[in-house]
Amino acid sequence: MKDQSRLPRLSRVAVCGGTHGNELSGVYLVRELLKVKKKKKKEEEDEDGGAMSVLLVLSNPRAMQQCLRYIDTDLNRCFTHACLIGPTLDKTPYEMRRARELNAMLGPKGSAGAMDLICDLHNTTANMGLSLITYSDHDWICMHIFRHLQRQIPDTPVRYIHYDVTSKESYSLDSVGKHGFAMEVGPQPHGVVRSNIYTTMKSGVQYMLDWVHFFNSGVIFDGGFMDVFTVVKHIDYPRDGETHNITAAIHPQLQDRDFCLLRPGDPLFQTFSGETLRYTGSEPLYPFFINESAYYEKGIALCLARKRRVKIPSVRVQTEEEERQNEQRYTSEEEE
Amino acid sequence: MKDQSRLPRLSRVAVCGGTHGNELSGVYLVRELLKVKKKKKKEEEDEDGGAMSVLLVLSNPRAMQQCLRYIDTDLNRCFTHACLIGPTLDKTPYEMRRARELNAMLGPKGSAGAMDLICDLHNTTANMGLSLITYSDHDWICMHIFRHLQRQIPDTPVRYIHYDVTSKESYSLDSVGKHGFAMEVGPQPHGVVRSNIYTTMKSGVQYMLDWVHFFNSGVIFDGGFMDVFTVVKHIDYPRDGETHNITAAIHPQLQDRDFCLLRPGDPLFQTFSGETLRYTGSEPLYPFFINESAYYEKGIALCLARKRRVKIPSVRVQTEEEERQNEQRYTSEEEE
Repeated sequence: MKDQSRLPRLSRVAVCGGTHGNELSGVYLVRELLKVKKKKKKEEEDEDGGAMSVLLVLSNPRAMQQCLRYIDTDLNRCFTHACLIGPTLDKTPYEMRRARELNAMLGPKGSAGAMDLICDLHNTTANMGLSLITYSDHDWICMHIFRHLQRQIPDTPVRYIHYDVTSKESYSLDSVGKHGFAMEVGPQPHGVVRSNIYTTMKSGVQYMLDWVHFFNSGVIFDGGFMDVFTVVKHIDYPRDGETHNITAAIHPQLQDRDFCLLRPGDPLFQTFSGETLRYTGSEPLYPFFINESAYYEKGIALCLARKRRVKIPSVRVQTEEEERQNEQRYTSEEEE
Repeated sequence: MKDQSRLPRLSRVAVCGGTHGNELSGVYLVRELLKVKKKKKKEEEDEDGGAMSVLLVLSNPRAMQQCLRYIDTDLNRCFTHACLIGPTLDKTPYEMRRARELNAMLGPKGSAGAMDLICDLHNTTANMGLSLITYSDHDWICMHIFRHLQRQIPDTPVRYIHYDVTSKESYSLDSVGKHGFAMEVGPQPHGVVRSNIYTTMKSGVQYMLDWVHFFNSGVIFDGGFMDVFTVVKHIDYPRDGETHNITAAIHPQLQDRDFCLLRPGDPLFQTFSGETLRYTGSEPLYPFFINESAYYEKGIALCLARKRRVKIPSVRVQTEEEERQNEQRYTSEEEE
């Protein structure tokens, strides 16, 4: 790893809300930002070289209108390579069609024309503070943004979650960008907007845009160490063999304790008759998405991650000369 | 008011869950009670005269299956006299039809054959602890049950809410019984079951059934004073004139402070641009259902109540002789 990484400037950034139509902080934040932008009547520009365009997107308008997570299928699972290239038929689910529209607007995924950075706004019923969810433990842009947010928002815990999935298998909206992450803020019930969660998300987006601005302006960001939570597995609720109904809830001693180490033998569930069920895994791991409402149907009561300390290099934006050379390299790679 | 009220025994009690299909504590509690009952293989009976039958009902199975509040319309608004007597047509909403089924099963509303007591289980995203919601400030049965719960569940705030609506206009499932109330427990996001909330509801139901058992056994319950929150009005979110979208969330200083006195000038909302809007009413009132998810569509950001201290008489069950006389009186009233 080089001690300093020179990276292309981030000229085009997208901030998306309402990918899940009932996660209201993102919906109202994007609406608010659209209102502010309309007032300014033109895209934000400045004269110090930090300029970028910010595209504001409401991802799933039909689900938003009905205040549902989705209409036919979870939009945020529709951005795999396989989903995006399939034919669009009459019976194609609404979200699958919408994913292709968004891919045309923000991508195409994996192409030179894709957004430089996509920040997709989400809420969770879990007590997760502000988490950046990514597919990479070596995307220096996402990781530096994370560190910036962690420093700037001291009153909310900020974490970096890494799903170890290839680019082709990556399924979420943010995977359409050259860089991207979900900004997940909780706890907030779906269908509700809580001022404190909204405000945290608003700060998160503002500090993210600030960082991009500084980066584009040539500021050098020092390298260092940071914690990455890499997802290992998830655990379903205990269920009735016949009805498949859940037979227990998250144990009160585990509820709301996202990112607190879960050790073998610790209470995991409390059955509806009052019995305690314990964690039988052999490795202590960090739980998150504990009791996320939308994951009941996915068979996920909580996710478990391993925490690793990762070294990241210092970063700065490429000079125009470096960028030209890089573009040529990119183009010739594409042609191969 | 008499110092002691002698009231008919409560032989038939119904406990209903899933009237709103995404309020999961009630759904899982009724399922658990059904399982326990099945194990016992017969209705609970005892030999000390406290016996009663307990009917367990899952009110809205289709909404439960989809984990939605309702399919076509809010079931818990379908029990008005007008709704129950209308003709059932092909286009009649599912919940309207279901309300008539439930009225046949638990009522008919206002008749001698109706359940003696209906307890309908609900959850709210608001920080309301355990609330009994009723249409009466002089239903001594509901009020004594309330006092019993308040004494027995000291670690959860227990309140008595009174909607001042006539029996004919009363719209909720519990209004089908001779006595009835909604047991509302929160905060819990819809589509989630939290162990602590589930356990509070389970205790609430158990203590309620205990009280009925004691009452039927002839125990005399002392009269006294209690606080009643009578609903005065509700307040909607500030909304955009064109889109009707909300433009503010509950103020962080008000969020989660259900039943804490709201005074003129206190912060009420925080707009999405960060401005504080204050309570402009002239009377200090008690807010509840603050930021209830399901009420966004109803145009209710919070409800406001007046607190009154009410005197209730001592109660005991009627003797068989008194009950016979009472039945004759009831029958002759019906014939009139």
